[in-house]
Amino acid sequence: MTNQNEKREDENFLVTPWEVKGIVDYDRLIKEFGTEKITEEILDLIKDHTGDLHPLLIRKIFFSHRDLKWLFEEYDKGNKFFLYTGRGPSGDTHLGHLMPWIFTKWLQDKFDCELWFQMTDDEKFYFKEELSLEDTHRFAYENALDVIALGFDPKKTFIFSDIDISGHLYPLAAQVAKHITFSTVKATFGLQNESNLGEIFFTSMQAVPAFLPSVLRKRNIPCLIPHAIDQDPHFRVARDVIPKLGYYKPAAIHCIFLPGLKEGGKMSASIKESAIFTTDSAAEVKKKIASAFTGGQGTAEEQRRLGANPDVCSVYKYYFCLFMWDSKELDNLRKECIGGDILCGECKKILLKKIIPFLEDHQRKREQAKKQLDKFFITHEQLSSGEFEK
Amino acid sequence: MTNQNEKREDENFLVTPWEVKGIVDYDRLIKEFGTEKITEEILDLIKDHTGDLHPLLIRKIFFSHRDLKWLFEEYDKGNKFFLYTGRGPSGDTHLGHLMPWIFTKWLQDKFDCELWFQMTDDEKFYFKEELSLEDTHRFAYENALDVIALGFDPKKTFIFSDIDISGHLYPLAAQVAKHITFSTVKATFGLQNESNLGEIFFTSMQAVPAFLPSVLRKRNIPCLIPHAIDQDPHFRVARDVIPKLGYYKPAAIHCIFLPGLKEGGKMSASIKESAIFTTDSAAEVKKKIASAFTGGQGTAEEQRRLGANPDVCSVYKYYFCLFMWDSKELDNLRKECIGGDILCGECKKILLKKIIPFLEDHQRKREQAKKQLDKFFITHEQLSSGEFEK
Repeated sequence: MTNQNEKREDENFLVTPWEVKGIVDYDRLIKEFGTEKITEEILDLIKDHTGDLHPLLIRKIFFSHRDLKWLFEEYDKGNKFFLYTGRGPSGDTHLGHLMPWIFTKWLQDKFDCELWFQMTDDEKFYFKEELSLEDTHRFAYENALDVIALGFDPKKTFIFSDIDISGHLYPLAAQVAKHITFSTVKATFGLQNESNLGEIFFTSMQAVPAFLPSVLRKRNIPCLIPHAIDQDPHFRVARDVIPKLGYYKPAAIHCIFLPGLKEGGKMSASIKESAIFTTDSAAEVKKKIASAFTGGQGTAEEQRRLGANPDVCSVYKYYFCLFMWDSKELDNLRKECIGGDILCGECKKILLKKIIPFLEDHQRKREQAKKQLDKFFITHEQLSSGEFEK
Repeated sequence: MTNQNEKREDENFLVTPWEVKGIVDYDRLIKEFGTEKITEEILDLIKDHTGDLHPLLIRKIFFSHRDLKWLFEEYDKGNKFFLYTGRGPSGDTHLGHLMPWIFTKWLQDKFDCELWFQMTDDEKFYFKEELSLEDTHRFAYENALDVIALGFDPKKTFIFSDIDISGHLYPLAAQVAKHITFSTVKATFGLQNESNLGEIFFTSMQAVPAFLPSVLRKRNIPCLIPHAIDQDPHFRVARDVIPKLGYYKPAAIHCIFLPGLKEGGKMSASIKESAIFTTDSAAEVKKKIASAFTGGQGTAEEQRRLGANPDVCSVYKYYFCLFMWDSKELDNLRKECIGGDILCGECKKILLKKIIPFLEDHQRKREQAKKQLDKFFITHEQLSSGEFEK
């Protein structure tokens, strides 16, 4: 395993689960992380099972995977998979977080499968100097409202905080931890001698949900993890260890990061202006979109004459990743942009007409979700009760 | 903090919680570990509170401490302490393990205080390549029989396995872990880049029982940890961190290691012949004592003429540490030994007359303890129930 961290810092390009900096070269990530590109063959394989393809697949926002062929082979033999994804609860949810969850919801609908959703409140406590465990635990429940608001099946969706069910996770994380050395986490995550013991141990906790349902059901169940590519180092390590415990290597499907409203990087909750939060008011969204970075020209006259560049434009990326699933509509907008037929101000107004109703609807569902937390969160007692053994 | 490990290996003298090698120089340990010698003044202080002194104190087997003066100051103000000790359950219990527990029982009797007894089944799993978590968990319950057999107060003694109550320990260990770096565990325990993540994280788990009762009772309660000096590195680190979480630094009282039947080192369960196990039959004990290392001469004639050396004799150490509390009786035996008035074979017979009835009695109580495990072991559910909040 190479030291990703050192290598990339040299070139202003850094991807670890905790930091994404610079312009991201996704083909390079596939090569360096050792994942596989989602080819036309893989898209056909998915379509054979789902009937259609989600725009996030067609647009290659989900662009990389591990072991999807194997997953479908098992599926075709009747060995159905469960989904596992998660969230590091260090702040409010923004639109960038929703993208993979929307895709995960699509997978749950298509395959009628369980979703195990991990809130890594321990992780964010370890990695964020300023956050207490109470803070991250509170964010876990806040963020869950956004997950629930997306419409996951309450009968098949199990959300949990690491801290809440650590009595079940820690004994399994211990089994993982025994197989991982400090050298490995140093090379994989760029951890240092100055890293704290929680940061060092944590990857063991993130590995557990990939086989927890197999432990509870006392049979080996395939796992598919939809996640943003920056989390791959965790699962690369997990995939080495989990078979040693007698369980399947988890398969994965990876998306790009939803870029922020400024240039480069992923949308980050820690740079408030760069992200649209699910709880933002219409006025806040308007203000943020108004100052969003675009590929436009200095003046309206220049833009009419020279056209603009959608490929560097954060507004275009919102359409592309979340708010314009119709390919024809998106193509037309792109052509208008390049041809100088639309100005950035006009384009931003169209986006606002999509974002604001979406957020209003989401905020309504988010409010309703407050009464549903109990239905979705699993507890230590539930896991001990044997109800999952069926 | 110096790297104890590197420094000592140079000189064939090594003390970490996992390894004790060579001839141990206890004065040097006090200096290097930064603990305090138990002086006559400290003995008087203890006696003022207990009325008498346990032979293990008089004989300086408990020879070192941290913060005993403070502990008694708090005690005199009405701020009573609890006791915390533990066991790494990696095998059967031997007599060396009983020594500090016998002293701990004396402390419980004298101060009528609680004892929290940690079975570090996670630790032994991490550090022993060949042991599974099932193995160490089983040993936790096996070893507890020996603790219970010593007669601890079932109303005031709480034994727990780390794995059993990890749902309560892990969230608190997380708070500790955030304050300890890899550099610290490297320097303190001699851990390396090749150490596994569990080994690295573990000291955080061992710190928790020193403030767990304070967390449960929602008030700060002083803690006294009676333990063998080799565990001091854990508590040295814990004492740095625990005040940052708002709790008292635990006080400690340290004993030497009970030496094995061969030369040097501490009695070790991993060298079967060097230890007398609590479940050994009379025949096994006889065989082990027969081949025990002594300070005797090559022939009976030489011994009559030159006398023997009790200070290197493992048989004498059994008398000294466990089986001859009467000082006059011990003095007489010592004089006979030095004067050549007793041969090693005779002396071993006297020891057997003490060990075998002790073990028979212990084994009877150990058998009875099997029905009492539930009374002593605390569960996740009990800790969650709020019954400790009183």
